[in-house]
Amino acid sequence: MKTLNLSTIYESVQEDLDKVEEMLRLMSQESVLGLSDLLEYSLESSGKRIRPFLTLLAGKFYDYNLDNLLPMATAVEVMHTATLVHDDAIDNSLVRRGKPTVNKLWGKKKAVLLGDYLFAEAGALTASTNNLRAIKLFAETLKIISSGELNQAHHAFSLEQTRQQYFQRVAQKTAALFSMATETGAVLSQAPEKSIQILIEYGCNLGIAFQIVDDILDFIGTEEELGKPVASDLIQGTLTLPSILILERYPDDNPVKRLFQNGNSEAEVMQAIELVSDSSIIEECYEIASAFCSKGCRNLGQLPDSDSGQPLIDLADYVTRRRK
Amino acid sequence: MKTLNLSTIYESVQEDLDKVEEMLRLMSQESVLGLSDLLEYSLESSGKRIRPFLTLLAGKFYDYNLDNLLPMATAVEVMHTATLVHDDAIDNSLVRRGKPTVNKLWGKKKAVLLGDYLFAEAGALTASTNNLRAIKLFAETLKIISSGELNQAHHAFSLEQTRQQYFQRVAQKTAALFSMATETGAVLSQAPEKSIQILIEYGCNLGIAFQIVDDILDFIGTEEELGKPVASDLIQGTLTLPSILILERYPDDNPVKRLFQNGNSEAEVMQAIELVSDSSIIEECYEIASAFCSKGCRNLGQLPDSDSGQPLIDLADYVTRRRK
Repeated sequence: MKTLNLSTIYESVQEDLDKVEEMLRLMSQESVLGLSDLLEYSLESSGKRIRPFLTLLAGKFYDYNLDNLLPMATAVEVMHTATLVHDDAIDNSLVRRGKPTVNKLWGKKKAVLLGDYLFAEAGALTASTNNLRAIKLFAETLKIISSGELNQAHHAFSLEQTRQQYFQRVAQKTAALFSMATETGAVLSQAPEKSIQILIEYGCNLGIAFQIVDDILDFIGTEEELGKPVASDLIQGTLTLPSILILERYPDDNPVKRLFQNGNSEAEVMQAIELVSDSSIIEECYEIASAFCSKGCRNLGQLPDSDSGQPLIDLADYVTRRRK
Repeated sequence: MKTLNLSTIYESVQEDLDKVEEMLRLMSQESVLGLSDLLEYSLESSGKRIRPFLTLLAGKFYDYNLDNLLPMATAVEVMHTATLVHDDAIDNSLVRRGKPTVNKLWGKKKAVLLGDYLFAEAGALTASTNNLRAIKLFAETLKIISSGELNQAHHAFSLEQTRQQYFQRVAQKTAALFSMATETGAVLSQAPEKSIQILIEYGCNLGIAFQIVDDILDFIGTEEELGKPVASDLIQGTLTLPSILILERYPDDNPVKRLFQNGNSEAEVMQAIELVSDSSIIEECYEIASAFCSKGCRNLGQLPDSDSGQPLIDLADYVTRRRK
């Protein structure tokens, strides 16, 4: 099967995704002095826009009402941007998507405040749908994401983490927003509860797979492909699936263990990268990601006949094969 | 007129304020590992709880329905706490209310994430009222507060700021939450629009007065009274009303101007404190704060006869006379 590129997968809603882009642009133009530059910079179209795509596409199976779906899709992307801005600020990251981060350009203080503003804007957009389920889901999702991030911070440089704990953390910090994207799309298009649940299952599993591949690429990508330094998770003390597999395979001694126990050393980081790249660990990680995608797609066939099923399957395929 | 203490002013809703306290306690008990300590520490009852008091009291003029007023009052306090946690993290403040800050004890990373979690929790509590006006107001208020804080960061160490700009900033960063507290109390108790507007006017003006007095105390309080270092605003490069009055009175040369132009110097900070304390600047600031309070109270008499009017007037009096 040929893996499609995103623009082909997005085709059926591209016109509406462009409207989301337009809403993001307007947001920065309408804001006050000192804020619009920050908004424009952080929201400009360098991301993949997977999350708003999910909201729009999940809305396609029933009543595709753009009055609510467009602000919701925009909210999802704004919320995602807020989490990135805060992540970069607290991790002291200097580059993202090949560009200097907000904290690098404007300082941490403004980055934290910008993130707060973006969360609020995402909340306001969600509230504009007047849909209480979507609104409550928004607040709960932000609780789950920040709990997941706190959990990760809490376990920094700890070797006592299992695959299951990793999956749970990833479900919180990444998949919750993916499933919020599909759930709100379904809810706002008046989908029946059974269909909503199928789209939640899809979003959740796709999100976990997406994060696993992100964590693989952090090891095997180049700095240019990643748009950020290689092995940044490991350097931050975060165990991800590839490093957990290293710990499982070489329990007595391995570069991850040495790194976490003895503090940061470039040599250990390089050895961990080599160990992952030269073994079947990467392949195993991709298989695990694929299994999550399959699980996510297994019930899509029960949704009503629509053009939307195939792009979701194509996206799942793209996610487990992407290289950046 | 004798200035009352807070516990006397709070008397008519003390029982329900205790329930808010209980909701705050439960929140930390129910949360996940690694988070409950942070929640317990940041939410424990060391604050004045003025904002939840305002929500409850504003709800007393019409249908005092605790099912909605209690979560809303709790939401207001949680949102306030979130802003404090983020403020301390970005300002690198080590002490607040005489206790080490969250960032001092757990680091900036966890402080930022805790603030995010608290915003989300406040949003979830607000959403639990099922009242769309309260929900939309919540999101808009968070936008206003973070814009105000960004505006302040944008103007750090700038001498080009007028009283009007100061009042506007204070309206954003402090008074917006006070008026959200009174507006939601009024809205959730089914107050008619005219009464809602009177309570918004009260909350907004009380908030500005409260912040002016806070800014006075930052100059004339002792470190023990303040629970934080003296003149911290000035040291952060933030112009407040007392320092704006210094700039107005001594335009050619003054310690604030020297401090902002030449960088931080303890001698200039001390001179600014002395200049404020030995002049009529403090008195003038208190008069300005009083004028805002009077403006806030001027239409309270139009509200229906209830026990609530007097505590609001007493609180306004307390706010302009408080010493910590």
